[in-house]
Amino acid sequence: MISRIMAADLPSHIGEPVTIAGWLHRKRQLKSVTFLIIRDRTGLAQVVLPADDPASAGAPPEETVIEVSGTATASAQAPGGVEITGPTVTALSGPAAPPPFDLYRPTVTAGLPAILDNAPTSLRHPRLRAPFEISAASVAGFRAALDALGFTEIHTPKIVQSATESGATVFGLDYFGVPAYLSQSPQFYKQAMVGVFERVYEVGPAFRAEPHDTARHLAQFTSLDAELGFIGDHHDVMAVLREAIAGMLAAVRARAHSAVGLLGLDLPEVPARIPEIGFTEAQELIAKQTQRDPRGEPDLAPEDERWLCAWALATHRSEFLYVTGYPMTKRPFYTHPDPARPAFSNGFDLLFRGLELVTGGQRLHRHADYLTALAQRGEDPAPYASYLDVFAHGMPPHGGFAIGLERWTARLTGAANIREVTLFPRDLHRLSP
Amino acid sequence: MISRIMAADLPSHIGEPVTIAGWLHRKRQLKSVTFLIIRDRTGLAQVVLPADDPASAGAPPEETVIEVSGTATASAQAPGGVEITGPTVTALSGPAAPPPFDLYRPTVTAGLPAILDNAPTSLRHPRLRAPFEISAASVAGFRAALDALGFTEIHTPKIVQSATESGATVFGLDYFGVPAYLSQSPQFYKQAMVGVFERVYEVGPAFRAEPHDTARHLAQFTSLDAELGFIGDHHDVMAVLREAIAGMLAAVRARAHSAVGLLGLDLPEVPARIPEIGFTEAQELIAKQTQRDPRGEPDLAPEDERWLCAWALATHRSEFLYVTGYPMTKRPFYTHPDPARPAFSNGFDLLFRGLELVTGGQRLHRHADYLTALAQRGEDPAPYASYLDVFAHGMPPHGGFAIGLERWTARLTGAANIREVTLFPRDLHRLSP
Repeated sequence: MISRIMAADLPSHIGEPVTIAGWLHRKRQLKSVTFLIIRDRTGLAQVVLPADDPASAGAPPEETVIEVSGTATASAQAPGGVEITGPTVTALSGPAAPPPFDLYRPTVTAGLPAILDNAPTSLRHPRLRAPFEISAASVAGFRAALDALGFTEIHTPKIVQSATESGATVFGLDYFGVPAYLSQSPQFYKQAMVGVFERVYEVGPAFRAEPHDTARHLAQFTSLDAELGFIGDHHDVMAVLREAIAGMLAAVRARAHSAVGLLGLDLPEVPARIPEIGFTEAQELIAKQTQRDPRGEPDLAPEDERWLCAWALATHRSEFLYVTGYPMTKRPFYTHPDPARPAFSNGFDLLFRGLELVTGGQRLHRHADYLTALAQRGEDPAPYASYLDVFAHGMPPHGGFAIGLERWTARLTGAANIREVTLFPRDLHRLSP
Repeated sequence: MISRIMAADLPSHIGEPVTIAGWLHRKRQLKSVTFLIIRDRTGLAQVVLPADDPASAGAPPEETVIEVSGTATASAQAPGGVEITGPTVTALSGPAAPPPFDLYRPTVTAGLPAILDNAPTSLRHPRLRAPFEISAASVAGFRAALDALGFTEIHTPKIVQSATESGATVFGLDYFGVPAYLSQSPQFYKQAMVGVFERVYEVGPAFRAEPHDTARHLAQFTSLDAELGFIGDHHDVMAVLREAIAGMLAAVRARAHSAVGLLGLDLPEVPARIPEIGFTEAQELIAKQTQRDPRGEPDLAPEDERWLCAWALATHRSEFLYVTGYPMTKRPFYTHPDPARPAFSNGFDLLFRGLELVTGGQRLHRHADYLTALAQRGEDPAPYASYLDVFAHGMPPHGGFAIGLERWTARLTGAANIREVTLFPRDLHRLSP
């Protein structure tokens, strides 16, 4: 390893000879002195060169990777109160071509297309990198929370034989001469694996051939899926989701605090019990307290979700709200109905800051119920044969949920476009880089 | 949640009323008594029914999911020294159809095709499930080891514009009217992200349109990828890989000990420093000490790898062996040559128990070096333009490795066929379940 001290650790080495290495973030040539600001994964460090030092005139372009050896010297003006004096500068890369925009400026001066076209370089900007630190921490927290609850991690096929969920938006491919599809969701596999492990999760890509060119659609996203057996009903799934969300936020606080600070984020608190309102009750509340009357609608409108979130914050002091009991007509065929009101489901949405964040629910677990559900929807059970077979072999009551990682990170960071929190987004127009 | 005690916890509830729930693993109707063995994710529990109990004759078929309430009673003959007496049995699923083979027998009586065709049910067999517990623990250990070393987890596109690694074995697809491919490796993305995070890892699917119908080829596998910057040379990558492997084995010991015990596995020790031999030196050793003379061959033959592993065990008491300095001709174009011997690479293989387990190495990091490397191989740089651009913007010396999760688990468990350790394998003939 190149023997070096990280920028963030410099203050504990004052007076010592040190070597740092990183990208030349900024070069400022003044009359009597040249400042080099070095960026590594922990932060920035300042290097001071006398103007008559040959390294001053010869300093490479910004974004060149350099190694600097010198003395860590206390300096009230320098970032972190320390700078490197008497430096020797060695280039570790060739001279860097100019970045697509100035990476050293505190704010980002480029538009989203330029950022995305040049992602490998753009994302070096600390503000553009920060969401991905939050994203990585979130996934770690998701896994830690579910590991603690006895879940087993699985990896399931992304090439599948049937396009079983909303066939219109699926990518097809030639699989050794046979038509196949990219998986839109590990739904069926995670359900099947409840029969083996009882509680499973998967973090992996999901694919949607979304023909929509919007700020929230991606052709590939990272799905955080969980499924668990031996539930009473969907409330047990909601309790596990609450733990997952709390674990994600705890990990963001613990592992990505500098990213949170840099972006100035106000992370939400997760109540010990997230408040819940029934779909019908929610519509009645809106009808009573606003000018609108959504009663009879089969789903909540965006303005309903916004109003309900404001209501939950005011009434329950919670930025999270569960809405339960959506009409069956708006949920997938594998959704378990509410036994007391079969037109309504044991499904839920988790709303957060005005928008739906997670969907989940109890699933059917009896083979006969699947056949009935498909028949009621006028669907041929044949394409589902391999899936349905699982339920003939003894499956416990179960349910689960899926969190879209990019959507989660976008909500947490306030990103206007989901592409800002996706390393290399794939959409209608974007297949590269 | 269904309020229940797990099978493994029953011994601490002797004398108490208990409820357990799980699959009816085995039903044994004797003259005076019926035994029901219940399987849950923690193990087996025995339930005793008097033969004249109506529940005895009415017990559902094996693999039906049931809930049993009764009294936990000490019993020397019962598994775990406890059985449930005075039981009330309630079915939680419909009566289960017969499984593809007897899941209650200690050994598996079915062949691999039958197992794979019925994976959701077959994998309930404790011996067939065990490798996946080892696999899940391994991935957790991989992440924990790299997290501790300051790595950031990333998620990269699986739909890519160019088939840049060995184009012959790539799946093509139609991407909104444009040809695209399934990613064979996150190689280029993880390298690019070294420019952003310095140290990254990814756990995700990789796709190969392998036309080979063998025990070790899969069309989709789970790749554990890592890449790190600011290395001196490939030895720094090897040191990190050593930590990853040690972390994986530590996690298997800690999190999958019952699976390890069930399969009777002898887990390897990882030396503090894994022994290393140069490719040329290895060939000379083989020439001197065996009847064969591999000198001049551009790669190691399988029998060379077996011999070297035996040698490492005898000489270094290590089941792991690094071979370094493979000829450049056998490594991908982005491989960094050995500056002292440019025909040989700063690449390595990690051998384990007679076979190559992991490949890795130092990569080129200067833009000009990539252009030269491609030119020397007679390759057009145009398809690589987006990838190569990264190296014009300042990249540190870096390297990495990829571990095939299924291959790792197969080696650890001694599985003869990689499909035994893949939940739902994809190959030339298998697209379902």
